[in-house]
Amino acid sequence: MDRRTGLPVVAMVGGGQLARMTHQAAIALGQSLRVLSAGPDESAALVAADVELGDHRDLDALLRLAEGATVVTFDHEHVPTEHLHALAAAGHRVAPGPDALVHAQDKLVLRRALAAAGEPQPAWAEVAVVEEVESFAGRHGWPVVLKTPRGGYDGKGVFVVPDRDEAAALLVRHGTLLVEERVRLTRELCAQVARSPFGQVAVWPVVETVQVDGVCSEVLAPAPGLADELATAAQELAVRIADRLGVVGMLAVELFETPEGVLVNELAMRPHNSGHWTIEGARTSQFEQHLRAVLDYPLGSTAMTAPVAVMANVLGGRAAADDWAGPGLDERVHHLMAHWPDVKLHWYGKGQRPGRKLGHVTALGADLPRVRARAAAAARYLADGEVDPAFAFPTGH
Amino acid sequence: MDRRTGLPVVAMVGGGQLARMTHQAAIALGQSLRVLSAGPDESAALVAADVELGDHRDLDALLRLAEGATVVTFDHEHVPTEHLHALAAAGHRVAPGPDALVHAQDKLVLRRALAAAGEPQPAWAEVAVVEEVESFAGRHGWPVVLKTPRGGYDGKGVFVVPDRDEAAALLVRHGTLLVEERVRLTRELCAQVARSPFGQVAVWPVVETVQVDGVCSEVLAPAPGLADELATAAQELAVRIADRLGVVGMLAVELFETPEGVLVNELAMRPHNSGHWTIEGARTSQFEQHLRAVLDYPLGSTAMTAPVAVMANVLGGRAAADDWAGPGLDERVHHLMAHWPDVKLHWYGKGQRPGRKLGHVTALGADLPRVRARAAAAARYLADGEVDPAFAFPTGH
Repeated sequence: MDRRTGLPVVAMVGGGQLARMTHQAAIALGQSLRVLSAGPDESAALVAADVELGDHRDLDALLRLAEGATVVTFDHEHVPTEHLHALAAAGHRVAPGPDALVHAQDKLVLRRALAAAGEPQPAWAEVAVVEEVESFAGRHGWPVVLKTPRGGYDGKGVFVVPDRDEAAALLVRHGTLLVEERVRLTRELCAQVARSPFGQVAVWPVVETVQVDGVCSEVLAPAPGLADELATAAQELAVRIADRLGVVGMLAVELFETPEGVLVNELAMRPHNSGHWTIEGARTSQFEQHLRAVLDYPLGSTAMTAPVAVMANVLGGRAAADDWAGPGLDERVHHLMAHWPDVKLHWYGKGQRPGRKLGHVTALGADLPRVRARAAAAARYLADGEVDPAFAFPTGH
Repeated sequence: MDRRTGLPVVAMVGGGQLARMTHQAAIALGQSLRVLSAGPDESAALVAADVELGDHRDLDALLRLAEGATVVTFDHEHVPTEHLHALAAAGHRVAPGPDALVHAQDKLVLRRALAAAGEPQPAWAEVAVVEEVESFAGRHGWPVVLKTPRGGYDGKGVFVVPDRDEAAALLVRHGTLLVEERVRLTRELCAQVARSPFGQVAVWPVVETVQVDGVCSEVLAPAPGLADELATAAQELAVRIADRLGVVGMLAVELFETPEGVLVNELAMRPHNSGHWTIEGARTSQFEQHLRAVLDYPLGSTAMTAPVAVMANVLGGRAAADDWAGPGLDERVHHLMAHWPDVKLHWYGKGQRPGRKLGHVTALGADLPRVRARAAAAARYLADGEVDPAFAFPTGH
């Protein structure tokens, strides 16, 4: 409790864009997010009043962060599980708790839990030697997908492996791996749900996530053309997982849509890129909802504010390259605002590097192709300084 | 320009709730608002990363704030005009500029300017001796309204005066005053417009502002039952004033609606209580728009996101009294969220005192009476811990 305000203090491990946007939501609730940031120039550290500098692998830093906070939560999954237990043992509330969070940290733990629960997922096995991979591929075919159980994100730690030799090399480099069948998917979906300690859950419409090179490029809300029964099934699946694992806070269930139904890919237990659209596109954003959930506040309405919302990520592109000679960021923001006055910008304040998630844009409307074209064109312009001919600037601009 | 982000730095004088909510908007644009706050526990100082402590009447503090900022702007009108000129003379961009802002600082200056422009306003006169008040009342009738030219807000510095004796006493106490006819108004309206140095303007729907004891209680957007031609006339009036005075940033034109049309009451050149509904109720909030305008960015869409938006202020009430024995703030927030899951809370983090603006709530929908009832009941519960019977808590709560 903050004695100045009479309101709780949420502490978040990680100073990235998720913490940055959670701080925005905290401000509305009368709070100020306390952030553990690796450095003073991280996205959230640039804007938050209450910043603790330190590393998320340093238990002392975690304990400093937790001191006086109502609850400790996370903008990523990389805090060592033993540190989470140590925080809890020291009397700090941790949400999600370590026994839940491990399912978002360790893909093997997740696969075992989903198998025990009978939930749909790709065929998988734990493999330590190449013969086990060969045996799996004998049943499910090459290529297979090999994944490091821990530490991966945005496609890192995921390998599509065509043969025995590559599998052997990965096993030498990484040790025990998770092998999965390569799913013939129609597309990727995501079901997001929030759950409070009280057990209340709130679920948003299921979205389609468009991935490029393993990184989220666009999110379409709601997932276009998704049959009602499939959407409901995906939502119910997410709620079951949240309940069974005892998730507290936001849960993103990343799904493969296949002709036979949905399969669980992986989980995130925090605000997630798939839910950035909720800032403008839903009555309650995932960031506010995460705060409400970890504080055991009642959850907010997840109703959409428009028929369609599209979020497009801005990854560092040509304009983030060292030799970029085109318009600078501030000038690009000017043009963005001039050409897309209804597109909402979220810029994370990071240093620009190619491939880095630098910001996102959101467009709302009724007609998906048009809304999507506006969002994609705006994001592309920010990233690459390139204008889609459909949105060409007037002469003289 | 912030060398870390490549984006501009807006500095705002004043650490109140307007600066707090402007910081939220700045975060989305990749920025971090720099705030001059009177103390570390002011609303904005509690949440902003870049806080300069100091008084807005201290030129040195203002110069420290301005150092390295792209532009200096305001969350109130109380900076001495000579300090504004000194900032400009020192090479700092000030928005709105002193020659515009003085019309929001000094009601006599405003009355003269509106008279010169031929814009509709109440009958008025500058009065230094009581005979001038009597002469004015002879033409317009008692009671008259006496106003201190400077320093008033939220009904402070405004006196409804029934007779010569009270007028004489006020003149002794305050010196030269503005006298105005007491307008027989139907209701109060507000037209908000943003204007950039480039000259672009953006205008929101005209709203009705409901005042209680001179303080804004509710804002209804759009103003219910307002004829289109009257709404358009009010918007055009606001745009004309913004242009003529050279306003940069947000301009709120407070209006009296009378059977003969609208009359200008006063101006604010900053985000304004009348526009808090725009955070959820419009594509671009007044806070984001103020930043865009003072930075000479292109302005954002002012389209509404729902047919009706209602903002209700939370003024410190029974629950802010020293002897309050009911549920504390955190518990009231719980109940608020449980009972009005779609109502959006904005709490300013201030110490609670009766009569103080502590926060506001916003509800959106299609049916004004129902939306208004939800917002008003939620605000009243936060302020007084009292539940409207229409929203009674279930037994056992």
